[in-house]
Amino acid sequence: MNSYRRGKQSIVFPNKPVITAWASVVGKKEGEGPLGSAFDLVIPDGKYGEKTWEQAETKLQRTALDLALEKGRLGHSRLDLVLSGDLLNQCVGSSYALRRTGVPALGLYGACSTMAEGLLLAGAAANAGYVNHAAALSSSHFAAAERQYRFPLAYGGQRTPTAQWTVTGAGAVLVSRTGKGPRLTAATVGTVEDKGIADANNMGAAMAWAACRSISAHLEDLGLTPEAYDLIVTGDLGKLGSDILRECFGGEGIELGERYTDCGLRIFDRQTQDVHCGGSGAGCSAAVLAAELLPGLAAGRWRRILFCGTGALLSPTTVQQKRSIPAICHCVSIEAP
Amino acid sequence: MNSYRRGKQSIVFPNKPVITAWASVVGKKEGEGPLGSAFDLVIPDGKYGEKTWEQAETKLQRTALDLALEKGRLGHSRLDLVLSGDLLNQCVGSSYALRRTGVPALGLYGACSTMAEGLLLAGAAANAGYVNHAAALSSSHFAAAERQYRFPLAYGGQRTPTAQWTVTGAGAVLVSRTGKGPRLTAATVGTVEDKGIADANNMGAAMAWAACRSISAHLEDLGLTPEAYDLIVTGDLGKLGSDILRECFGGEGIELGERYTDCGLRIFDRQTQDVHCGGSGAGCSAAVLAAELLPGLAAGRWRRILFCGTGALLSPTTVQQKRSIPAICHCVSIEAP
Repeated sequence: MNSYRRGKQSIVFPNKPVITAWASVVGKKEGEGPLGSAFDLVIPDGKYGEKTWEQAETKLQRTALDLALEKGRLGHSRLDLVLSGDLLNQCVGSSYALRRTGVPALGLYGACSTMAEGLLLAGAAANAGYVNHAAALSSSHFAAAERQYRFPLAYGGQRTPTAQWTVTGAGAVLVSRTGKGPRLTAATVGTVEDKGIADANNMGAAMAWAACRSISAHLEDLGLTPEAYDLIVTGDLGKLGSDILRECFGGEGIELGERYTDCGLRIFDRQTQDVHCGGSGAGCSAAVLAAELLPGLAAGRWRRILFCGTGALLSPTTVQQKRSIPAICHCVSIEAP
Repeated sequence: MNSYRRGKQSIVFPNKPVITAWASVVGKKEGEGPLGSAFDLVIPDGKYGEKTWEQAETKLQRTALDLALEKGRLGHSRLDLVLSGDLLNQCVGSSYALRRTGVPALGLYGACSTMAEGLLLAGAAANAGYVNHAAALSSSHFAAAERQYRFPLAYGGQRTPTAQWTVTGAGAVLVSRTGKGPRLTAATVGTVEDKGIADANNMGAAMAWAACRSISAHLEDLGLTPEAYDLIVTGDLGKLGSDILRECFGGEGIELGERYTDCGLRIFDRQTQDVHCGGSGAGCSAAVLAAELLPGLAAGRWRRILFCGTGALLSPTTVQQKRSIPAICHCVSIEAP
């Protein structure tokens, strides 16, 4: 009866939904990073022609979605579902981006794991035949996030060495029942973990354990070893969190080596771009997925990737109340066409 | 090929997933309302033994989930998925409620439509065979919402006549592939609508059009008239929004009459409880569903209900920026056992 399901947290997709198109739109700083030429669009400044940073974030999402639909030669009217979210309070980046598009929409909250969560649900919907075309969409904006989570930029606050830099950017990924492109083969839904870390400037550490748990569950559920993947990529643990994840697997006698990487380390050059531990934000893994990972799969650079979205599920209120930071990680397995 | 899907926004569930258990936990004021004796638990005060209102909201969710699992004779370890969300920034009510439960979790953001969104996804997951048991869970807390969206309670701000009263409460609904109970037969994913209303104290009006759109789409997709349902229930338009919805259908020559009701009007007595336009909040429709609607279906009081979760997708930031309020409505069709 339960043919789709393997183990406790993982779902396999026998119909292998196809990722038929994708797009990324990022800020100036991201455009100056190592992946600069790979993004579909680099905006000239943080306002992107809008009055506020929040409205600019909405425009980032809407533009990424429109570009992906254009590349997939699909109009809004043929899109059956959008699964989207962002870091702004009440996820207003997404809601405003989808206003008046007429596209059925489900709002997600997964912090920086949102793209993986959306991809997982889009894959599940397409695999089950609920939709012909679904899009996963997420974004973040450095200035909007700083003012909401930390301090207004004008305050000039210093950042700690463990901090990550919220990416200004959005990614959109189109998942279809049929077509050409990389394919979704399985996914693992994460559990909410909390190892007691309460430092909001050290979210990589808070998320590392959740990533370790979910990746292990994925491998166990599907009877795989890390060698099954050419690339296991988290998004976004940053430098410190990535090191913890390596140690976590190392303790089990598993060396991840060059097979493992993190979106937060790929989007910026940590030596020259003053981002401390690397990039973060719901737009980071979304933009790296669309700019580097999916094109790499399409071009045969990698055969199989495990895309692991990691989210720190804190809020400014819980930080003020000195509570520790829950975290989650969802994994999606993607193979070359 | 696309056998599950009917029309553009709706999904039918041929395997009719079963709602096997449900539970509600509410605050004192809700306990004093018309449904008082129907809730599983009425907490003595807003803090519910916790230090903060936000922690109390987390406890409301966790207690509702645990009660539903207990009634369904299911441990956390047999629950395959929780779909949950709330109104707190970054949905921390849900994240903290699920910490260390080990249950695979997907975070949702749909404002007051969250229970309908969760039910829709739980039904889709069970219908497709992805899970044996999934739970939909949502909550809200009057004091936490007031301080976040409006003013701290100590400020003593006056409320406008069009305002609704955020329910302190949580509801949990367990959806299984097999078992006894009311059954999910179809669902309609809403679109993000915006009729230009910018008054955050008049969210019922902002949401009414979205409800009208989604209910119409549901009926059209499935080839039904409102008579197909014994009860069409929105959650939560309140008095003003409900009147607008009636007018919206009336303009099409459709009188909804006594067939139509709203969770925000059922949970409080507007004459005696000083709630202005009625109840609201992600916990309102969740608690009314668990306390009145599902028991009513189980007891044969109604044969078929269309449960329509409505969400106003604003944030305090968008209100300060004077933007209009996007809204959404997801519909779930539930039939008696």
